[in-house]
Amino acid sequence: MTVRAAVAGASGYAGGELLRLLLAHPEVEIGALTGHSSAGRRLATLQPHLAPLAEREVGPTTAGVLEGHDVVFLALPHGQSAAVAGQLGDDTLLIDCAADFRLADAADWERFYGSPHAGTWPYGLPELPGARAALAGARRIAVPGCYPTAVSLALFPAYAAGLAEPEAVVVAASGTSGAGKAPRADLLGSEVMGSMRPYGVGGGHRHTPEMVQNLSAVAGRRVAVSFTPTLAPMPRGILATCSAAARPGVGAQDVRSAYEKALADEPFVRLLPEGQWPSTAAVQGSNAAQVQVTLDAAVGRIIAISAIDNLTKGTAGGAVQSMNVALGLPEGLGLSTIGVAP
Amino acid sequence: MTVRAAVAGASGYAGGELLRLLLAHPEVEIGALTGHSSAGRRLATLQPHLAPLAEREVGPTTAGVLEGHDVVFLALPHGQSAAVAGQLGDDTLLIDCAADFRLADAADWERFYGSPHAGTWPYGLPELPGARAALAGARRIAVPGCYPTAVSLALFPAYAAGLAEPEAVVVAASGTSGAGKAPRADLLGSEVMGSMRPYGVGGGHRHTPEMVQNLSAVAGRRVAVSFTPTLAPMPRGILATCSAAARPGVGAQDVRSAYEKALADEPFVRLLPEGQWPSTAAVQGSNAAQVQVTLDAAVGRIIAISAIDNLTKGTAGGAVQSMNVALGLPEGLGLSTIGVAP
Amino acid sequence: MTVRAAVAGASGYAGGELLRLLLAHPEVEIGALTGHSSAGRRLATLQPHLAPLAEREVGPTTAGVLEGHDVVFLALPHGQSAAVAGQLGDDTLLIDCAADFRLADAADWERFYGSPHAGTWPYGLPELPGARAALAGARRIAVPGCYPTAVSLALFPAYAAGLAEPEAVVVAASGTSGAGKAPRADLLGSEVMGSMRPYGVGGGHRHTPEMVQNLSAVAGRRVAVSFTPTLAPMPRGILATCSAAARPGVGAQDVRSAYEKALADEPFVRLLPEGQWPSTAAVQGSNAAQVQVTLDAAVGRIIAISAIDNLTKGTAGGAVQSMNVALGLPEGLGLSTIGVAP
Amino acid sequence: MTVRAAVAGASGYAGGELLRLLLAHPEVEIGALTGHSSAGRRLATLQPHLAPLAEREVGPTTAGVLEGHDVVFLALPHGQSAAVAGQLGDDTLLIDCAADFRLADAADWERFYGSPHAGTWPYGLPELPGARAALAGARRIAVPGCYPTAVSLALFPAYAAGLAEPEAVVVAASGTSGAGKAPRADLLGSEVMGSMRPYGVGGGHRHTPEMVQNLSAVAGRRVAVSFTPTLAPMPRGILATCSAAARPGVGAQDVRSAYEKALADEPFVRLLPEGQWPSTAAVQGSNAAQVQVTLDAAVGRIIAISAIDNLTKGTAGGAVQSMNVALGLPEGLGLSTIGVAP
Repeated sequence: MTVRAAVAGASGYAGGELLRLLLAHPEVEIGALTGHSSAGRRLATLQPHLAPLAEREVGPTTAGVLEGHDVVFLALPHGQSAAVAGQLGDDTLLIDCAADFRLADAADWERFYGSPHAGTWPYGLPELPGARAALAGARRIAVPGCYPTAVSLALFPAYAAGLAEPEAVVVAASGTSGAGKAPRADLLGSEVMGSMRPYGVGGGHRHTPEMVQNLSAVAGRRVAVSFTPTLAPMPRGILATCSAAARPGVGAQDVRSAYEKALADEPFVRLLPEGQWPSTAAVQGSNAAQVQVTLDAAVGRIIAISAIDNLTKGTAGGAVQSMNVALGLPEGLGLSTIGVAP
Repeated sequence: MTVRAAVAGASGYAGGELLRLLLAHPEVEIGALTGHSSAGRRLATLQPHLAPLAEREVGPTTAGVLEGHDVVFLALPHGQSAAVAGQLGDDTLLIDCAADFRLADAADWERFYGSPHAGTWPYGLPELPGARAALAGARRIAVPGCYPTAVSLALFPAYAAGLAEPEAVVVAASGTSGAGKAPRADLLGSEVMGSMRPYGVGGGHRHTPEMVQNLSAVAGRRVAVSFTPTLAPMPRGILATCSAAARPGVGAQDVRSAYEKALADEPFVRLLPEGQWPSTAAVQGSNAAQVQVTLDAAVGRIIAISAIDNLTKGTAGGAVQSMNVALGLPEGLGLSTIGVAP
Repeated sequence: MTVRAAVAGASGYAGGELLRLLLAHPEVEIGALTGHSSAGRRLATLQPHLAPLAEREVGPTTAGVLEGHDVVFLALPHGQSAAVAGQLGDDTLLIDCAADFRLADAADWERFYGSPHAGTWPYGLPELPGARAALAGARRIAVPGCYPTAVSLALFPAYAAGLAEPEAVVVAASGTSGAGKAPRADLLGSEVMGSMRPYGVGGGHRHTPEMVQNLSAVAGRRVAVSFTPTLAPMPRGILATCSAAARPGVGAQDVRSAYEKALADEPFVRLLPEGQWPSTAAVQGSNAAQVQVTLDAAVGRIIAISAIDNLTKGTAGGAVQSMNVALGLPEGLGLSTIGVAP
Repeated sequence: MTVRAAVAGASGYAGGELLRLLLAHPEVEIGALTGHSSAGRRLATLQPHLAPLAEREVGPTTAGVLEGHDVVFLALPHGQSAAVAGQLGDDTLLIDCAADFRLADAADWERFYGSPHAGTWPYGLPELPGARAALAGARRIAVPGCYPTAVSLALFPAYAAGLAEPEAVVVAASGTSGAGKAPRADLLGSEVMGSMRPYGVGGGHRHTPEMVQNLSAVAGRRVAVSFTPTLAPMPRGILATCSAAARPGVGAQDVRSAYEKALADEPFVRLLPEGQWPSTAAVQGSNAAQVQVTLDAAVGRIIAISAIDNLTKGTAGGAVQSMNVALGLPEGLGLSTIGVAP
């Protein structure tokens, strides 16, 4: 099977990463590339790392340009996907890297995004219980946010096994590419190098309801999440430090066993050997997630930490993985678990 | 008054920062500089940023070299201060940047450091309730650890006002200078640039009991701390993200008022205007701490975040500030609240 | 003497660095701060590292706001200084950090900047032969560009002593703050971290004629400069690697002696001990320049390398140093030779 | 054809990069991994980014362990390859990533490395004139140094076409991984982040004679090279800024044409469109080299700049590319021209 794929938003970071991965996918042929302000320009200067596509020109993001592909990846600003989606039929597999179709609760959407809810699509995190079945054969997929990917992978085994109280505390550090490629003074290299700073503190980050949704579904009850994102001086990577009080009677071995069981067969999530902790460098450029967990007996908390590449497993790699599942291809086709380090 | 000061451990990061600050202190004259493996070498190559001291030679760390100074700063590896201290009389103000005399509980010391407890000295964090009085006229001072400085400044107002439950969760990111200058493969630039990673997870970090000690003293009851340090790709700075459940009935205004009251007169701790959050860049090279706090109503937690320079306010600046208090000098003499940014 | 100083362009990087230095200057009182798009805002968010000025509000850049100060520093985009200067009389010392008044040759100006030449002011690099005399008592000063500062300090001793052929090759690496604070996609942290890239290659960089002007004046004949600037993944610092063929018969000792003689009495330029090479970290945040030189006998070239902080010695520190000279204050007043490292 | 490959020095940066690439090579099966101090340990902690090899154990570097493979990659410290090579017969393709067999001139070797010359093997830079023929069927290959790779690719077209005078000036910036993984205080993250510094200035760097050898062979006469390496605050990448005086009568179009012709058919070297300049980010993790050239008419110099990843095209990728040529496999098999950016 050769899959012809288009990428809308080809000049941004998510679009560039999608193209990097699709170029390495043995069953994908890259079709139309579209953009907004970049329309009419060549990729040589927009994405100078994508040498094989240097001569490719970016077209406008219209249904006319996107239709006729087997798969269309949408890497557009939040709120623009629905308009495009409405013009493309079910003969096209639509994979949305924006937030538009991630949330099941319309009220959550409206509170955090301030616009009408567009709907809910199958959620592209195959590792969550039941997710693979929902993705198989799907024609519409909502790719998770990068933070929810990291946090859900770190904590779902604890909630699936009923080991943790339903209040989680998450502090995560992200590389700057998560903030996108649009020029902003506070994202200049001069500002971010040598500096750590939080943002969206106090529950305001839009990824919070997505974490709550995922963990609550696994736990079978509402899980509250205190989420603080921080900006780290690196281009890529998320390190999510997550914790929750252990339920009464839970011991260290219960925790270890639950994680071993939950992650044993996952091709892209690796529970590290005891005593070794994740680093974002180890997963850079790869679709892998590293997870480690421990029980801090002195305070009675389960500490689970994950590392992913926000652009790969956190966005474009997760999107390709979900595409593979939806199309019945081997789930890992074209994806790598090998990081680019140092 | 001219104070003649010696620095033991002059070739390391803490020693270098002490010298940088002491050079700018109008009442200090720099006396002996000592080291271990660096003895006999000049500062020109050991600390190339300290141009005025380039020709100064490092001597051996012996009582004979250190005695006869008004102040001796010890920037030695943990466990070596007691031997030196025992040989210097009370005519010398001894300021220890290591952990040896920070903890009041001998059992804590032995559990975390694995050696006999050397004793407890007045604790050099003037901002803590009662600390200035204990430091005034002191002849021995234990400089706090960098993480406990950041965390105590972020959380003490909440505990002093009785607003928070006695279980705190702290995730902090530190620049690499906190790990010292001794060569280690995992601290090579190749390893740390582009990467975030945790260490000492699960309660194992030696700074944990110091945080517990400080916050418990303020709260008047034992405060448990879940502490996860992470290594960030920057040379300096600590960003401490701290949270604790708000006690029943506590509102956002209670929190704001408590912090405003606790920090109003502090020369080096600045509660930022509402909506503005700390960054390590803003305090780089300065003795300032930036603090911000909010109440996340959705989860009922107080989120308090602080940023300091681990080498300045977190070590050498805190030491000089405490020296000023002990000697009756203006507390801020020779210290700056102005960061080197960008 | 207390000098009342205004800063036009207070929200940018040069303006911020001027304020950082002026706050530490014992004879300066900071008066008006002005900006363009930042007018009406407070420094608390514009320059969060300048804690003592947090409550100060930025005013508009008009003659009315700027007049009545002893000194006015202009940190404006190129081409805007003349209009302001024309409205301020000689009772005000005007110090321009832009390029407008640096070049003596109007044709050079027009070729590189594409607008009419505004004139030529005394050049604020006191270390150049004759410069101090020209600056003493001056009422108008043109602060050198950051690259010309680094390159002139590295090479002028060789040309002053007649040791080098009049074709120099310069490759310099600069931190990103040299490119300013205006948002640009190619200066995002995501783009610059982990990357080195050249720009303005082939003689196109506007600092080239300034280097030619300085070195030609010293050499007494036209010196051609091949200049390639590169952008390095760091916020501050310039490392300038400069070379020129040695004239016939020139030996290593001739080179060393010439540099020792030329730099012996310079308070801010330090010829390092033989075998030690400059680093930008060692001069970060300071007004110092480190210089080292050698003769590569195998190729017959003098290799001279300098390191400065582009914002301090390369801009704001050089401006303050020149102000001191112009006003008859001690040249080093308020300035430091101590870097913030690591 | 399945090629069974061993890697000696599997725990270092070159070894890790070799393994990263060999894992992606469709015709390679990874055999023995050996090390010195790492023998007996697992790759999980030594190379945490190489997830598929996590359980593999490092063996000792002995002929017994290495024999019986089709290919053996040596990533050992300089001077150790000859002993191993002498024990392995010609049924094994030996590819040496160290310097031992790169230089044809024994006197050069002895002057720069201070030990007896071990010999000269076919040189693994296929892009040099005549190199592919020498590599086809070879049983011993010397992989070029990372700097000579970058510099030779930037300058050989100019010398091959007789456009440049035989004195080249090279200033190159390298990421820190080029200095290896052995702990050194001056390579700590704290030291390198935020800093640029030169080293090996004045002709002392061991890669100089290799550049001279390559360019002289192409030019048909001795080419002198003034080479200054600098250490940049990034893990990977080399940016080489090279220049030489243009020979009389050479025009901009001559230069462009020569580079277009020389590089037209090279799969891994890309002459960028006019006006676009290389960046190390664009080739990170890939085997590609970006090259751009211009004639600076004002000074009569050809400026040629290249960017490579020092670990990939500069070491391990070059090694695999040469292996492909030697074995008659498609030259690009298992290698990518796509960078990991941002």
